[in-house]
Order: sequence, then structure tokens, then C-alpha cells
Amino acid sequence: MPELRFEPVARRWVIIATERAKRPSDFAPPEQPKKKEGQECPFCPGNEALTPPEVMAYREEGTAANTPGWQVRVVPNKYPALDPATELVPRRQDFFHSQAGIGFHEVIIETPDHRRTLAVQAPEEIAVALRAWQERYTELGRDKRLSYAQIFKNHGAVAGASLEHPHSQLIATPMVPVAVETRLANTKAYYDEHGRCFYCDALEAEERGGLRLVYRDDNVVAFCPFASKFPLEVWFLPRRHQASFSLATRAQLASLAQALHLVARRLFKGMQAPPFNLLLNSAPYRGGDYQASFHWHLELLPRLTLIAGFELGTGMYINPTPPEIAGDFYRTE
Amino acid sequence: MPELRFEPVARRWVIIATERAKRPSDFAPPEQPKKKEGQECPFCPGNEALTPPEVMAYREEGTAANTPGWQVRVVPNKYPALDPATELVPRRQDFFHSQAGIGFHEVIIETPDHRRTLAVQAPEEIAVALRAWQERYTELGRDKRLSYAQIFKNHGAVAGASLEHPHSQLIATPMVPVAVETRLANTKAYYDEHGRCFYCDALEAEERGGLRLVYRDDNVVAFCPFASKFPLEVWFLPRRHQASFSLATRAQLASLAQALHLVARRLFKGMQAPPFNLLLNSAPYRGGDYQASFHWHLELLPRLTLIAGFELGTGMYINPTPPEIAGDFYRTE
Repeated sequence: MPELRFEPVARRWVIIATERAKRPSDFAPPEQPKKKEGQECPFCPGNEALTPPEVMAYREEGTAANTPGWQVRVVPNKYPALDPATELVPRRQDFFHSQAGIGFHEVIIETPDHRRTLAVQAPEEIAVALRAWQERYTELGRDKRLSYAQIFKNHGAVAGASLEHPHSQLIATPMVPVAVETRLANTKAYYDEHGRCFYCDALEAEERGGLRLVYRDDNVVAFCPFASKFPLEVWFLPRRHQASFSLATRAQLASLAQALHLVARRLFKGMQAPPFNLLLNSAPYRGGDYQASFHWHLELLPRLTLIAGFELGTGMYINPTPPEIAGDFYRTE
Repeated sequence: MPELRFEPVARRWVIIATERAKRPSDFAPPEQPKKKEGQECPFCPGNEALTPPEVMAYREEGTAANTPGWQVRVVPNKYPALDPATELVPRRQDFFHSQAGIGFHEVIIETPDHRRTLAVQAPEEIAVALRAWQERYTELGRDKRLSYAQIFKNHGAVAGASLEHPHSQLIATPMVPVAVETRLANTKAYYDEHGRCFYCDALEAEERGGLRLVYRDDNVVAFCPFASKFPLEVWFLPRRHQASFSLATRAQLASLAQALHLVARRLFKGMQAPPFNLLLNSAPYRGGDYQASFHWHLELLPRLTLIAGFELGTGMYINPTPPEIAGDFYRTE
């Protein structure tokens, strides 16, 4: 029997419908898109000249910028969605409203090793990449023209990756994006009603219940959310209430890396390295008071189902895998 | 130079970034998933027993229900996302909020001919399928437990189709979905500010400008919206202001069918039959006064780009194809 579950952050109803998993298909399961042959990877050491000059790198002492010797390397996206070299001038013609596409689009190359996907990276390596996330996140927040930064990782062609080499991306925008506005408004309303942060409450309830719990230590708790949009979705929350990712300590990032390592390893082993997205949700750089009501976190979204007409029209999702089953999946070694 | 464009209905900023189209990929373009061999199509004539009994059909006089002789056939989905045979009882345990998955999930089989995709259907055939849409849409609205119905078509495996035979689906829900709530609230705010319907204004502005115009006749106007989320996106609007799809006349549906026919033909010819979603956006069945501020319409969303981490995190979209180019594409024979 299908169940409707409410996700208060997006005010989204999710349909948990196990029956849907049984439906037949005319089509064979999609194949992983084929790797093109003989193409040079612009993210591999030795090919630094194939990217724009690096804005930051963690590298061996004595090695020069834009040469090998780095552990993590951050470069502007060569094909940027937004461009810092434009002026922030709103335009209005007739009834259409636009502005120049000001912003930043950076690539965080997480490892020099082309084959070292998240699932095989050691927790210490993941922690270093997360520190690079945090450093760029914080640095770009100093630019007064920017309101928000979305850090995300697309793994696999179906999840939007065009390059295979392990990397994540940061897009900083001059406005607070609509989904972020919604998230902030709904968690603010929750705070105003209950006098507590929604995420702090969710974390407590999930630890108490345990059914959907995936990971816990002194710093970080990870669980499959009650109203998961996607099969095997996981949220990673710092135990301490913090609105902005900038506030995370080294110890918190180390715990987060440990949780990501375990979850990714299990996901890759149990589901044959599926495509996934990993998102950072943090408070905006400026505007609004969300210190008490927002709580930064990561979302891991495996892309085992498709976003089809129903989802695009309604903003609701149909998920054939109850998150309680997903919790079991991640807790099984 | 990228441009940020505002879409007032979703309050969504879209990034129009032509540079993004030039980026290289490690992966070959995704192949159309392979058709499985020797599988019987449950939607083909003669196989009526493979679906649940029909709830409606347009069929030759003298032919019995659940036998061949139909032109359009509507059946309950065999693997439904929602189920009418449950009670509408909200549940709350601890801080989690859910309810039984009450609702309807129907399949509209648009043609007896397995190979007759939208692009090759005659306008008259499309019009008959649209009448079936309308009949089921209106009929289900009589059930007082339901608040909304989403009609949609998924074409191609990437767009979420599991069966190849041309069909669309209707999912009726006991609540107004979140994306619909947003759409209604934002167009209501527009109406309160301007004293006019947003869609009526958009239709006029697009006809006046002409750059993004795709189709026009006495009843229907189709255009690529100024802030298109997807490359080659098209909106189809009735010229007459109507909140609900139930109000559409035969003449309007005939014009809509003509517009769909021309757009689908051009899309399939110019882009090799790409995956797409087609959505109906109509007013809710009950609750709220949207007669003046909402205006039913269809959205055609080709799935030539992927929904990746940035889109999932922010609700913003990156579109490499300016809708002015898309307008040209559709106006070229």
C-alpha cells in the first residue's frame, strides 16, 4: 500500500510506493555511457595547462602552481555557467526580467588519481577535499556581490558528470536560489513555531528511532530521511548546531569524511557504483537571520530512479524504496 | 556571456549559458536504452487482458469493453503510485507526518498503433487523446477526496517511460502538490499587483515580440518561454483566459492538437526523436480562488540536458540554448 510522507523543509510530499519497483520495462537497464578513447584528461597531473590557472591547491612544498605535486587543485571552470567579469546590472525590457550572469564557477579536483572515486578514497583524502570545499566556500563569501554558493558533486554521466576524474564544483550566485529561499523560509517557520531547529529535531528523532540511522559519532550523524525523494538517499548533519559550513571544525570535517567514506563504499559495493549527486546545503552568505533556524548539511542522492513528468510538474517524488530498507542496506557490511 | 533570466511563476532564475554547450565530455552521448526482445506489449490491441479493466475507451460501436476496436483506452496503472482503495487518515508518530497513499493513477493509451508516436500522429488523433485527458481529468475531480490531478507524458526511457507504446498518465492526489502551490501563489501575487493574469500578459508579450513564438491561431499560442529551463522547451496556452483544463472547448483542443503536432514533428525531425516530458498545468479541483489568476497550459520539456547537483540543490537550471534560438528552430520547416 503506497504511503505519502511529508518533508517539511521543501514542504514536499513524497510517495513511497514499493509496488512501483515491480513494474516491467520495454527497455534494458540503461548502460553506463561509453568512455571515449584516447582523450586527455584535463584534471590529471601533467595536464595542468589544459585548465585555467589554479585559484588554490594543496601541494607538496617547493612545487610551483599549475604543475604536478598537488593533492587537491581548484580551478575556474573552463566552460562556466556564470562569469565574475560582468557587472551586476538588472535589466528589464517590457515584462521580461534578466541580469548579466555574474558569479563564480569553480572545479575542485579532489585527487590527482583519475581512478580514485569517492568510494575508494581514504577518509583522510576525503577530509582534505572537504577542507578545500570549505576554503573556497568561505573565500568567495567575501565578495559582496554574491549571496549564495552551491557546492555539489556529480558522479556518473546520468548524474550530470561530463568528466570522469573525481571532482566537485562550486557555483556562487548573486541571488539566493529559489530552492534555498524555500528551505530557509520553511525551517524559519518551524523554528518560530517550535523554538528549535528542524534539523536538530530530525537528528534527535532519527537517533532515537534508529531504523533509518546510517552513521553516528561525536560530531556527525547520517541517516536516510523519513521522506526520502530518492532510493538510498542519505543526509549528513553535524551534531552541533551551525548555520554555515564555514563554521565547521577540522574534527567535524574528519567525521563527515569518515561517514561519506563508509556510505559511498557501501553504495558502490551494493549497487555497482551507481550515479549520484552530493550536495552541500549551507546558509546564504548575507541577508536574513538564519543562525538559529538553519543547519548546514550534506545530501547524497543516488540516481537510481528518473525525474519524469510527474516530478517535474508537481515537485513530488515517487520513491520505490522505503528509507527504512535503505537504513538496513547501509548498516549491512 | 551568460545571462540570468527570471521565471516569475516558479520564482526561479535560469542561467542561459551558451558556453556550456561547448564543453567536452569523457563519455559518448548516451545511447537510447535497448529494446528488450520478445516482450508482449500490454497496450497493444489483443492484449487488453494484460492491463486492469478499462475505465473508459473511445471505441467502434458494437465492440465490447476490454477487447480490440478502441481508438483511445484508459486503464488503471497496474503498478500504481497511489491507490483509491485506502482511507484518508493522517498519521503522526513522533515528529513524522504521513498519510495513506490515496489517489488515482491511470494510463491513457493514445493509439492502438505501437509505433505511432506523437510526432507521427495526425492532429485529429492527438485531439481525441486530449479529449480523453479532459474527460478523465473532469471525472476524477468529482471525487471530493482529491485536490489535484497531474496529467503527463513521458517519452523515451531517459524521460521516465518504461513502456514504448504511446501513452500518457494521470496521477490524482489528495493534496495540492508543492510546485503547484508555488505556481498558484506566485501568479496570484502577480494578479494582485497588476490586475491581470501573468499568462495572458506573457502570451501578449510573446506575440508582440515574435522572437520566441512557435505557433498561433485563433485559439492557441505556443512559444519558447523567456526563462526556459530546458533547451527547446515550449509552452502551449489557450488564448482565452481559463483556469481549468475542464473548461477547454473542442475547438481549443483541436488547435492545441495542431500545435503539438507541428512542434513534435519539428522536434523529432530536427533532434532525432529525443526524450521529452509533456505536462498539463491546470488549477486545483477545489480550495482557493484562482479563476482570475491562473491559466491552464501545457509544457513540453525536451530532455537534452541532465538534472544534476546544481539543479537539485538550488532549483535553478542551466540552459545552453537561448529560447530565441529555439524559436528559430521551431519556425524552420
